[in-house]
Amino acid sequence: MAKEKKMVEAITSMEQDFAQWYTDVVKKAELVDYSSVKGCMVIKPAGYAIWENIQKKLDARFKETGVENVYMPIFIPESLLQKEKDHVEGFAPEVAWVTKGGLNELTEPMCVRPTSETLFCDFYARDIHSYRDLPRVYNQWCSVVRWEKETRPFLRSREFLWQEGHTAHATAQEAEERTVQMLNLYADFCEEVLAIPVIKGKKTDKEKFAGAEETYTIEALMHDGKALQSGTSHNFGDGFAKAFGIQFTDKDNTLKYVHQTSWGMTTRLIGAIIMVHGDDSGLVLPPRIAPTQVMVIPIAQHKEGVLEKAEEIRKELAKTLRVKLDASDKGPGFKFAEQEMRGIPVRIELGPKDIEAGHAVIVRRDTREKITAEFDQLAEKVAEVLDTMQKEMLERARAHRDAHTYEAVTYDEFKETVATKPGFIKAMWCGDEACENKIKEETTATSRCMPWKQEHLSDTCVCCGRKAKAMVYWGKAY
Amino acid sequence: MAKEKKMVEAITSMEQDFAQWYTDVVKKAELVDYSSVKGCMVIKPAGYAIWENIQKKLDARFKETGVENVYMPIFIPESLLQKEKDHVEGFAPEVAWVTKGGLNELTEPMCVRPTSETLFCDFYARDIHSYRDLPRVYNQWCSVVRWEKETRPFLRSREFLWQEGHTAHATAQEAEERTVQMLNLYADFCEEVLAIPVIKGKKTDKEKFAGAEETYTIEALMHDGKALQSGTSHNFGDGFAKAFGIQFTDKDNTLKYVHQTSWGMTTRLIGAIIMVHGDDSGLVLPPRIAPTQVMVIPIAQHKEGVLEKAEEIRKELAKTLRVKLDASDKGPGFKFAEQEMRGIPVRIELGPKDIEAGHAVIVRRDTREKITAEFDQLAEKVAEVLDTMQKEMLERARAHRDAHTYEAVTYDEFKETVATKPGFIKAMWCGDEACENKIKEETTATSRCMPWKQEHLSDTCVCCGRKAKAMVYWGKAY
Repeated sequence: MAKEKKMVEAITSMEQDFAQWYTDVVKKAELVDYSSVKGCMVIKPAGYAIWENIQKKLDARFKETGVENVYMPIFIPESLLQKEKDHVEGFAPEVAWVTKGGLNELTEPMCVRPTSETLFCDFYARDIHSYRDLPRVYNQWCSVVRWEKETRPFLRSREFLWQEGHTAHATAQEAEERTVQMLNLYADFCEEVLAIPVIKGKKTDKEKFAGAEETYTIEALMHDGKALQSGTSHNFGDGFAKAFGIQFTDKDNTLKYVHQTSWGMTTRLIGAIIMVHGDDSGLVLPPRIAPTQVMVIPIAQHKEGVLEKAEEIRKELAKTLRVKLDASDKGPGFKFAEQEMRGIPVRIELGPKDIEAGHAVIVRRDTREKITAEFDQLAEKVAEVLDTMQKEMLERARAHRDAHTYEAVTYDEFKETVATKPGFIKAMWCGDEACENKIKEETTATSRCMPWKQEHLSDTCVCCGRKAKAMVYWGKAY
Repeated sequence: MAKEKKMVEAITSMEQDFAQWYTDVVKKAELVDYSSVKGCMVIKPAGYAIWENIQKKLDARFKETGVENVYMPIFIPESLLQKEKDHVEGFAPEVAWVTKGGLNELTEPMCVRPTSETLFCDFYARDIHSYRDLPRVYNQWCSVVRWEKETRPFLRSREFLWQEGHTAHATAQEAEERTVQMLNLYADFCEEVLAIPVIKGKKTDKEKFAGAEETYTIEALMHDGKALQSGTSHNFGDGFAKAFGIQFTDKDNTLKYVHQTSWGMTTRLIGAIIMVHGDDSGLVLPPRIAPTQVMVIPIAQHKEGVLEKAEEIRKELAKTLRVKLDASDKGPGFKFAEQEMRGIPVRIELGPKDIEAGHAVIVRRDTREKITAEFDQLAEKVAEVLDTMQKEMLERARAHRDAHTYEAVTYDEFKETVATKPGFIKAMWCGDEACENKIKEETTATSRCMPWKQEHLSDTCVCCGRKAKAMVYWGKAY
């Protein structure tokens, strides 16, 4: 048992040091490993399998709305990156430059894509001619590179995996509708699949995407009270279209510029899953996204009939669920600790006495609740437990978020709250970037979003006291 | 009809100019477009959907054999690439180098991965300690970059999409078994899913992968008689393990080096599908891989009940097949031409007279055979036609390959055959690279592989007349 205990002890507790807890979990749950390439990570099978499930489920939702997948080049020639002024200013300082191909210097340097607006625009300028060619609703799954100085697995790395949707529309209204549609899709996905509740809102001008007219965002609250931007959807208006000359002949036979959007979600979501649901025993995966939903763990497996029955149960459950059997030669305590560390939503404990009694014990990963189920009702019962767990994980995350969402009317209240109560702070804002800057400097909190659901907390800006224009969610962020 | 005729006329005929026909098909079937990034392509929805199906079906086959997916960094530091001597010699001349990150010069240049052996080895050296950690059977889906001078869509481009499997085993025998297993898996996939028959064999030392002990290959014959290497599987022995120090403690408590393999298939396969099955009307997709298997095309769709019945049929077939309805305002002739150009395996023609008669007409893309089917048997009949078509496409490709496979015993015969009969040439070889070089120089044919199914054609090398060691498939290759 010494070894088993050690496995659990090896994780730092969340309360003691949340950052170290996070690092411990990503390592011990075998999600990622560091690589010899500074700032880049190796995503191991347990981590990549989560990403595969995210891809599969998100992609299916995309396709229901008419999204088609494509693939654009990995490189962006310097001259292409420079075509849209705000965009290049935002991204040029953080890209990796290829200057040599084969044995020769390139005549024009190319960067590895940090995002592909410029490539899609370049393509659309050649591909779109008539209103019949619209809308274009394209997406790609790929990796992108941003030369970050400080990196953390999943949350911020020099390379990450994502999807980036890029659309072109005939009218401003249609582009705005698509921008909103995708943000709603992201929010539903987070809540329904990842059990992560999110605040939907609009970024301030200071925080919006380089080149966008509007950026919409979903913001989630992590267990430590910090905010995580979990997905964004941008409306570009016709700014990129004008920079790249993307015009079409409309039904009325006049040349018009298209209106564009882009939207993305990344492997960051895995970081969000860890930090919203994890506990001091490790990862806790929501059943709908868990690569393995059930681990069958035999007890006293050397005894006659135990392994056979365990395998029979695995096989039966595998008809409708993602199940594994741990038949290794480790002790049950070790297997439990391992299953918990990896966040597998439920385990089924099965020993000789259970077999004699004709039942097995289902143990929930999140609450440790034990549910005894007769063999002939096991499959049904496990499915029910997984459903309940999925729902309760969302409810718990929502309750945690709500309990850590504060309001501030005066600046003193605001500073006091930031300093003492980790979480979101709702406060009114005058719309001036100067106040955002001041708040950031003095408290390290940033404006997360102007939520779609506005509330009227007071008439004046929490920072400067001038007339308020909007309520903003503020918070310290990853 | 003028416009419809023009659409078909716009493709060059295969007989007239095969290379131009290929270019026409990839463009007109909307598979790819050229990009502003020299040598890189844009894969459009119709092309990417084929790749998605390849991924889905190949990945499922991988997983049945225990493969787990992971993701390694996109960059390889120069010092890592240089660790295995043969490997760096093979790849260094054709990689893209990143020399600047953000605003700073890098202290060590990194290349964009041309293949990831070095990254996997670097990871395995840290990750593998004990025989309990073996085997490692990892794979990744990603893009790679090779600085090619001459490029053609799908066949040779500076960036392409692929999967690369990298495994580590306790014994040489197990590594060899995995190498062979994956080549067989590739061959079965090509035949069963893509309807492309392949020759399985071993590469000569001259043609094998940089750093491999053995390279196995599957070679397919295109319609123009040129060979296309369609998938490779490499056994590295313990060469990389020694260069990277990948050791494990075996059951007998001694330190041993692992034995490794790697294997890959790429977007090249889409080129193979085009060149094996296409015709002068465009692409012909095997039903199992076709993103859309059936196009329902209404005739006189303005007449009452036609569109409704067409939609009813689409809906019914969609329960089991991938179906679309072309309800656009183009004429039927144009729709037929478009469906044929895009290679959709069957179309269903449906006009007022058909509706009156209670049937529809199924038209096969490959043979143009028309099959009339009663409405209540339509779904069953379409499925049957697709099955038959899949089988016959493979048979036809095999017959074509066999009819274009020749034997040569003397060098004069060999030269005559290369010059006049496009196809594979089977001929004996002494095993000396000098003969391979001579044949390549004098005929442009290269050794494709030493097939697993050896035949004895004569006692002597077709080139030098010395004692023969193996029968080789020779051919001009893409």
